[in-house]
Order: sequence, then structure tokens, then C-alpha cells
Amino acid sequence: MIILGIDPGLSITGWGIVDMFSRDKISLIEYGCIKTTHSTPLIQRLQNINRELQFVINNYKPKAVAIEELFFFKTSKSIVSLGEARGAIILTVSLNKIPLFEYNPKLVKIALTGYGSADKRQIQYMVKTLLKLENMPTPDDAADALAIAICHINSSI
Amino acid sequence: MIILGIDPGLSITGWGIVDMFSRDKISLIEYGCIKTTHSTPLIQRLQNINRELQFVINNYKPKAVAIEELFFFKTSKSIVSLGEARGAIILTVSLNKIPLFEYNPKLVKIALTGYGSADKRQIQYMVKTLLKLENMPTPDDAADALAIAICHINSSI
Repeated sequence: MIILGIDPGLSITGWGIVDMFSRDKISLIEYGCIKTTHSTPLIQRLQNINRELQFVINNYKPKAVAIEELFFFKTSKSIVSLGEARGAIILTVSLNKIPLFEYNPKLVKIALTGYGSADKRQIQYMVKTLLKLENMPTPDDAADALAIAICHINSSI
Repeated sequence: MIILGIDPGLSITGWGIVDMFSRDKISLIEYGCIKTTHSTPLIQRLQNINRELQFVINNYKPKAVAIEELFFFKTSKSIVSLGEARGAIILTVSLNKIPLFEYNPKLVKIALTGYGSADKRQIQYMVKTLLKLENMPTPDDAADALAIAICHINSSI
């Protein structure tokens, strides 16, 4: 079963595709990121995210999509931008009629490492280990997206 | 020329359709709002906003869409929800290939009343007067959407 994990952002959205045969047998299919620049108008940035995400969906035909819940809020424009990117991403998934699951960041950490206070490097190390990769996936956003996909697999079996 | 003004929100999105013959000759076509409840999952709320907005677009075939820029930020979950609704709304407009214009709230006030510190009631009074309505449009979100549509007309002539 093909799972798409997404780490959303207006400037950079990480994505990762994992194939699940069983809980103990998962493999990496592909990962990458969608970048948009600050100087591009918002409508075009959201269009680009939609177009590239649609390309990923068409190419890998995921049966489920996993995305991180928002739970940390700060006063800045970045949280609005994150909301706008999330809105466009969730709508894109929804228009493709693919089930979407949201996971609390703490749950993602527990699913990967066994404890909720794991740091970014520990998460990435577990992504590398679980998917039997030679190198850490980069950028971080793609590694985080793979972690969310693995969290969905662990939570749904 | 049919203009669609939108006042976005996850719980309530106001919309208003105005027909423009000239700067001095504008008329109300229709207004309304899209409501979603807090107990509904986010993906369904964004789906509902997309579906109802698509219905408005199909029905009135606007040639341009005007939406308010975000410029006031506060630390709360509501600003994230507003971002998510905006992201879904902007993507819906964009997928219909309709030009979208963002206006600063201060500019909307100036366009309607002539000064940037006008309050909500003054804006609504001007919407009622300019569109020659017998009553104030309600809810506030729909009146605000009509104000944004009128602002676009004043700015584009």
C-alpha cells in the first residue's frame, strides 16, 4: 500500500512516498520537496504547490496521505503562510478523494523513536534505519514527510 | 463585469457578487455565506468551502475575485484556521483560472468611505448606500465581502 507523507510549508513542502507490505516490511519509493520563492505572488505559490503535489499523486497513486497536525502557534506571518499552504495541500488531496490522516508531532516522534521528546536528528536517523537507506534523506522537510508516512503505517496496522 | 468579493474564514466565509457597468453604476447580484462547524473534521470543512464556492463560481461566472489581505496577526488557533481557509479558497479560485486580487483592509475602508479608520458600521452603511439596498446585508461577513468587491471596482477603473 502506497502512503504519501507531507510536511507542509509555503516556502518548502516536503513529501515522501513509502510502500508498506507489512509493519515490518516497508520501503522507500521516492521523496522530494516543492519549493516556492518569497517574491512569487501567493496565488502562484499555492498554484505551484497544487500542481507539483498533483504530479506526485498522479505518479505514485497513494492510497492514503498523512500530514502533521499543527499544535505550536507563534505570532508571526509564517504561521499564516503555513496555514495557507496546509489549506491548499489538504484541498488538493481531498479533490483526489484520497483519505487524509493528521498526526500530532509528538505521536510522530513516538511512532519513530518510542518517545515523544526525540529531536530532529533522532527522527531522521530512524527514517534512515527503518527504510534501510545509505544516507539521511535531505532536505529535512522530505525526511520529516517520510517520518509522517511511517507514523501512519505504524498507527494503522 | 461580474465581481466576486470574499471575506474568508474557516467557520464563516462571506461572499458577495456585484455587477459593474461603470464606476458609478454598480448593482448587487447576490450575497451569502458558507458556514462550517467546529465539530467537523478540517478536511471536510475545506471540502465544503471548496464545493460551495465552486457552486457560486459556476452560478455567477465572476470575471474577477477580490479578497482581503491579512495584515493583523494574533497568537491563536484562529489565525491558522483563517490561513487554511484562505489557502483552500485561493486554490479554488485559481483552479477556475479567474484573476484574484488582494486588498489591504485599510484600502477597502478608504475605497468605501474615503478614510482608513472607518468602523464596521460605516463600511456596511456605505455598502447599503452604494448598492441602493433597503436593508444592511447580513451577516457581517457577507457585507464585508461586498465591500471588498466594491473596493476592487473602485481600484480597477
